[in-house]
Amino acid sequence: MLRLTSFIHIFRRSMSSSTVNAGLYRNAPVQNVKAVHDFRSDTVTKPTAEMLNVMMTADVGDDVFDEDPTINALQDRIADMAGHEAALFCPTATMTNQIAVRTHLTAPPYTVLCDHRAHIFNYEAAGISFHCGAGLVPVQPAPGQTHLTASVIEKHLVLDDDVHHAPTRVVCLENTLHGMIVPLENIKEITALAHKHDLKTHLDGARIWNACVATGISLKEYCSHFDSISMCFSKGLGAPVGSVLVGSKPFIKKAKHFRKMYGGGWRQAGILAAAGLYALDHHLPLLTTDHQNAQYLAQTLLDLNLGFSLLHPVETNMVWLNAPVPADILAEVLAKEGIRVFGGSGTEMRLVFHHQITREAVDKFVRVLKQFFEK
Amino acid sequence: MLRLTSFIHIFRRSMSSSTVNAGLYRNAPVQNVKAVHDFRSDTVTKPTAEMLNVMMTADVGDDVFDEDPTINALQDRIADMAGHEAALFCPTATMTNQIAVRTHLTAPPYTVLCDHRAHIFNYEAAGISFHCGAGLVPVQPAPGQTHLTASVIEKHLVLDDDVHHAPTRVVCLENTLHGMIVPLENIKEITALAHKHDLKTHLDGARIWNACVATGISLKEYCSHFDSISMCFSKGLGAPVGSVLVGSKPFIKKAKHFRKMYGGGWRQAGILAAAGLYALDHHLPLLTTDHQNAQYLAQTLLDLNLGFSLLHPVETNMVWLNAPVPADILAEVLAKEGIRVFGGSGTEMRLVFHHQITREAVDKFVRVLKQFFEK
Amino acid sequence: MLRLTSFIHIFRRSMSSSTVNAGLYRNAPVQNVKAVHDFRSDTVTKPTAEMLNVMMTADVGDDVFDEDPTINALQDRIADMAGHEAALFCPTATMTNQIAVRTHLTAPPYTVLCDHRAHIFNYEAAGISFHCGAGLVPVQPAPGQTHLTASVIEKHLVLDDDVHHAPTRVVCLENTLHGMIVPLENIKEITALAHKHDLKTHLDGARIWNACVATGISLKEYCSHFDSISMCFSKGLGAPVGSVLVGSKPFIKKAKHFRKMYGGGWRQAGILAAAGLYALDHHLPLLTTDHQNAQYLAQTLLDLNLGFSLLHPVETNMVWLNAPVPADILAEVLAKEGIRVFGGSGTEMRLVFHHQITREAVDKFVRVLKQFFEK
Amino acid sequence: MLRLTSFIHIFRRSMSSSTVNAGLYRNAPVQNVKAVHDFRSDTVTKPTAEMLNVMMTADVGDDVFDEDPTINALQDRIADMAGHEAALFCPTATMTNQIAVRTHLTAPPYTVLCDHRAHIFNYEAAGISFHCGAGLVPVQPAPGQTHLTASVIEKHLVLDDDVHHAPTRVVCLENTLHGMIVPLENIKEITALAHKHDLKTHLDGARIWNACVATGISLKEYCSHFDSISMCFSKGLGAPVGSVLVGSKPFIKKAKHFRKMYGGGWRQAGILAAAGLYALDHHLPLLTTDHQNAQYLAQTLLDLNLGFSLLHPVETNMVWLNAPVPADILAEVLAKEGIRVFGGSGTEMRLVFHHQITREAVDKFVRVLKQFFEK
Repeated sequence: MLRLTSFIHIFRRSMSSSTVNAGLYRNAPVQNVKAVHDFRSDTVTKPTAEMLNVMMTADVGDDVFDEDPTINALQDRIADMAGHEAALFCPTATMTNQIAVRTHLTAPPYTVLCDHRAHIFNYEAAGISFHCGAGLVPVQPAPGQTHLTASVIEKHLVLDDDVHHAPTRVVCLENTLHGMIVPLENIKEITALAHKHDLKTHLDGARIWNACVATGISLKEYCSHFDSISMCFSKGLGAPVGSVLVGSKPFIKKAKHFRKMYGGGWRQAGILAAAGLYALDHHLPLLTTDHQNAQYLAQTLLDLNLGFSLLHPVETNMVWLNAPVPADILAEVLAKEGIRVFGGSGTEMRLVFHHQITREAVDKFVRVLKQFFEK
Repeated sequence: MLRLTSFIHIFRRSMSSSTVNAGLYRNAPVQNVKAVHDFRSDTVTKPTAEMLNVMMTADVGDDVFDEDPTINALQDRIADMAGHEAALFCPTATMTNQIAVRTHLTAPPYTVLCDHRAHIFNYEAAGISFHCGAGLVPVQPAPGQTHLTASVIEKHLVLDDDVHHAPTRVVCLENTLHGMIVPLENIKEITALAHKHDLKTHLDGARIWNACVATGISLKEYCSHFDSISMCFSKGLGAPVGSVLVGSKPFIKKAKHFRKMYGGGWRQAGILAAAGLYALDHHLPLLTTDHQNAQYLAQTLLDLNLGFSLLHPVETNMVWLNAPVPADILAEVLAKEGIRVFGGSGTEMRLVFHHQITREAVDKFVRVLKQFFEK
Repeated sequence: MLRLTSFIHIFRRSMSSSTVNAGLYRNAPVQNVKAVHDFRSDTVTKPTAEMLNVMMTADVGDDVFDEDPTINALQDRIADMAGHEAALFCPTATMTNQIAVRTHLTAPPYTVLCDHRAHIFNYEAAGISFHCGAGLVPVQPAPGQTHLTASVIEKHLVLDDDVHHAPTRVVCLENTLHGMIVPLENIKEITALAHKHDLKTHLDGARIWNACVATGISLKEYCSHFDSISMCFSKGLGAPVGSVLVGSKPFIKKAKHFRKMYGGGWRQAGILAAAGLYALDHHLPLLTTDHQNAQYLAQTLLDLNLGFSLLHPVETNMVWLNAPVPADILAEVLAKEGIRVFGGSGTEMRLVFHHQITREAVDKFVRVLKQFFEK
Repeated sequence: MLRLTSFIHIFRRSMSSSTVNAGLYRNAPVQNVKAVHDFRSDTVTKPTAEMLNVMMTADVGDDVFDEDPTINALQDRIADMAGHEAALFCPTATMTNQIAVRTHLTAPPYTVLCDHRAHIFNYEAAGISFHCGAGLVPVQPAPGQTHLTASVIEKHLVLDDDVHHAPTRVVCLENTLHGMIVPLENIKEITALAHKHDLKTHLDGARIWNACVATGISLKEYCSHFDSISMCFSKGLGAPVGSVLVGSKPFIKKAKHFRKMYGGGWRQAGILAAAGLYALDHHLPLLTTDHQNAQYLAQTLLDLNLGFSLLHPVETNMVWLNAPVPADILAEVLAKEGIRVFGGSGTEMRLVFHHQITREAVDKFVRVLKQFFEK
């Protein structure tokens, strides 16, 4: 595991919410150049010919009536892998997160606790407050620590029902978080604390696959600690569309009601579920290569002493760089060579690896930057 | 156009919300019988081999970044057909309705006016109130009339800002409504009234295609009267998944923000958009046959004098029957012969026609019922 | 009980929501004339010298900490009178209604059923949808009937949890309703139906005092059928500010949480509670006179054959008139003589009686109109 | 101004939300002892005889119809003092905060930024998320600083409308904050930054009176920087009930709509407004004494070297102590001598001064503790 002295331990929300965020989702200028290597996100992969073949031969039905056999097969398989009773296939990981929290909540007032860097706090358009009327309480790790611990979380729990307060009802974790793996020990302690107080726990496991592959810890082990888990198929796994939510049977039944109300009650989506099933068999093992490529890029770049440093340790498929020049400049330079990264006026850059980023692409990435800085 | 004296002119919400609703979405008992002919809904169609071929070769990209060329093509084509500036491809018609109303609204308090039989009032899990905090004001047509008129709606508009009131902000119509076509004249007068008072207008046009085909009125003509229109591809058009919302550029930009927050920001969904494009070319013309089959079934069944009567006139692809026995009984009888309809303890039945209901299926449907009642 | 053939049995919501509403709360022009007799509402009374004396000697404390002895005394007294466990003193009847429904609800989706003429549907700014995200289902009485019955309500209940539906969770009644008394038999049947289905029942009893006085039915009897009841002190009872909500102890504890969140957690409001206690002793018996004055005015006016008719029977302290000319005209005529009524461009007029409307005021009211029409 | 080395500069939210909060609103055990000196909050004062006299003779009317002359007088006077166009009298400071933010917001998604110690974040039951569906973003001062600065806030602003984000729409400050005065320079810079980006600014000025008296800065000066300001009359000013919100005319008109919907549309509340007018004349000048008493207690207690230290500097009417033993113990000891403070299992204690805390009470407070620790 690559850990460098240049790593900035406490990645402030101020950075993630303003400078970095702005960059994350701002497109690099596209100048009639065919982008071949896309480091912006692992959401950008396109289905392979093999995956498409499987999709087009899938048996389908109306999923609102629970009659899509391929969706049912995916749901059953994931529930089984996760060791939970039931699963629900949804269009996006934002939907699985949003309806999971919504389903756990009953009568307000209430708050939901999460990491201050969490996707549900920063990148879901304040949906938890919008859809649930819930206050979201973002928590920072203790000074000098990378991840939340039970003792930090305990200080932020609101457990009484005094009329001034909104009791904590759900504790959310995210794993991987900015590409970093939340230690299993932290997960165990935090969820034990939550359950001791009858709180619900949700894992935003959009990239839990990367954590499993990197640590060797099974999906079942990770999922055993949470009341619900959201997993994405259209990130590292490379399916075009879809996420799955798992939990108990009553939980999933209720979540399905919210899925319909939020507009996720799709019909013959077994075509997409087939891609998910294929990805489990054929793409899940490829994540190891993504992680190796990420470490290889980070190490190679740092060895060149061009002025880059790491904002986070490289533990899975992301490299968070602090660049010597604004990201916009590098985004433009790279775009000319068919490499896409998010720009931004700040110097932070997030590179994301997936099965359509090859070792050659990594080499080209480094080469382009090297040439740029040598000029 | 078939109009019968037995038609019950005023279909009370009391019927639609309790007896009929319960039946609409309660599955008939499935007894290890392969259902071949599915009259439950036009949402149940499966993609054809030709449609799948087109889907498989679609160029795709990450739609969150507006980079899916097939989605963009579908959106452009629909916007052009509808005569509006922009369009947004979403997983379901419930989502296009929900985000359309949400996008039209700004600061509460407010109410949204709709027909008391509308999908957004009865079948979207009170989503308008949930997502928008808006009161939904369901309006009944004037006595003896089938459809809403401007004069009826005018009486229910709340136009002042007295502190006791929640002003009307959006007027929604649905066309077709229970398979019936809202007269263009009514649409013109109602939307003119709404716009006179600076209210927004939305059309739930999930089945507007059927209205266009049945009347010869163009999509552009229908859409020209509304600020936004929702159109479904996975009903009569036979695509597996997807609906499109159209409106002005600022409206669609804002709607896209809500789409993301509601969990509809999918990725390489161009595969599904390709089915939509195919359906416009190849399935849209087939709706005429569906309408003919619906009328044929209704007329044949009534001619047999088995005790059936019509609850609504048959104007497009639906036949609403009042049966001489509870729907549950007929659903079971039909299921044994591979015909699926919704049951229910009441006597109301809704039959929906689509391109995978053949004339032979209709003949079989009638034959089975005839044999049942002759016993 | 005065019942006239000119009574319009089915008072359409269209009238109440547009024409009448607009008038109800639109002030008559005030032309430097001291208004002496105010028929606009029973909310306009001013505390008497005796009431003020009691208020100013009340022992008070911080009610957020449950330490206001006068509030506690009022709450205990009302809970005892109503036969419920606990009570909560709030600034307004809108607040007691809003937090009552909010407290009964738990996890959406859900709907709340009420009369289409109900205050919570028409005059609380769509607050139920705003605060609860609940769909409000307004129901009309059966044709020819004045009040809702269990059989009508049953048709509108949504009892299943199909994903398309929002189940009914609360049934609300209002008594008196537009000054009319909901028959106890209807109340019994409707609440029994609701409770059979595990639904909660709430009574908007802002003017339940008038019903008690008019029928001789005790508050305890009325309240015994509901899970919660809202009662107002600043209407017919003549206190300056305040309403009380009653229910079970857990219900009131939770309602108090919402009261705080909605901004109703006031401090030394025992001053106002003292007025409530005084009103129970000294103003409650005066309601009989109000009812007699209302009937006297209605009968006298009709006997004059000036063209007035009744929109509702006069059963308590309201007279609903259909005037021969627009209300605005009469409001102006009356204002010149120190009599205030709501105007409006329509011909509907609501007159409300309270302890500061004397028999002399009624005579003057009639005399002014008589003179006007004789000109 | 008392500033001590023992002051803990960065008062972590973890403390305020868990340990301290729990204590703040948990009553000390009351053992049949008449509490004479109440240090729990400045909300506990009771109206004096002189104030009651004024209240009793106030001219009143129905405030829903804007006809209460005393309320109108108070509103006019406060608007004038604050240099804003209009004002609205409400039951509580929670209501003025809640409806102020609600009124500033229009169409979601959106976030509201505030100090992590703010009342609206910690003590209003997550009302901003509940009522507005808004995400609340709590911000901490820069390391080593007591108050927020523009540069810290700037890092947390979300200014773009990317679909992942919820843009910042309102920036809220609170002054005084935990009894501390937000420097005018900070206010100027922060509100200038907000207005530069077209954001709305709200001041929770529940205790702005204390800041004015302590600094000599006028209410007008403080209020000139904000779009809306909430001011409380039932804290240091000693009125029994009521807060006022000020802003532009359109803002107050809209806020009044929300006041009604939230249940704050009270009737003859001029009785309470009279107390507010009296308090401006007669209690406002007394705040200086409260501040002196607070400093006197803090200094005296620290001089005794009993093990107490200060959690915050004593700048107005609050003393935040870190006690050498759990607060519960001291609360019990003090209660026996007729002194009330909040207990709690932690060692933090908040003492609040008001015009009904005399110098003698302070001396007694210190004497009781001295005797306790000397045992």
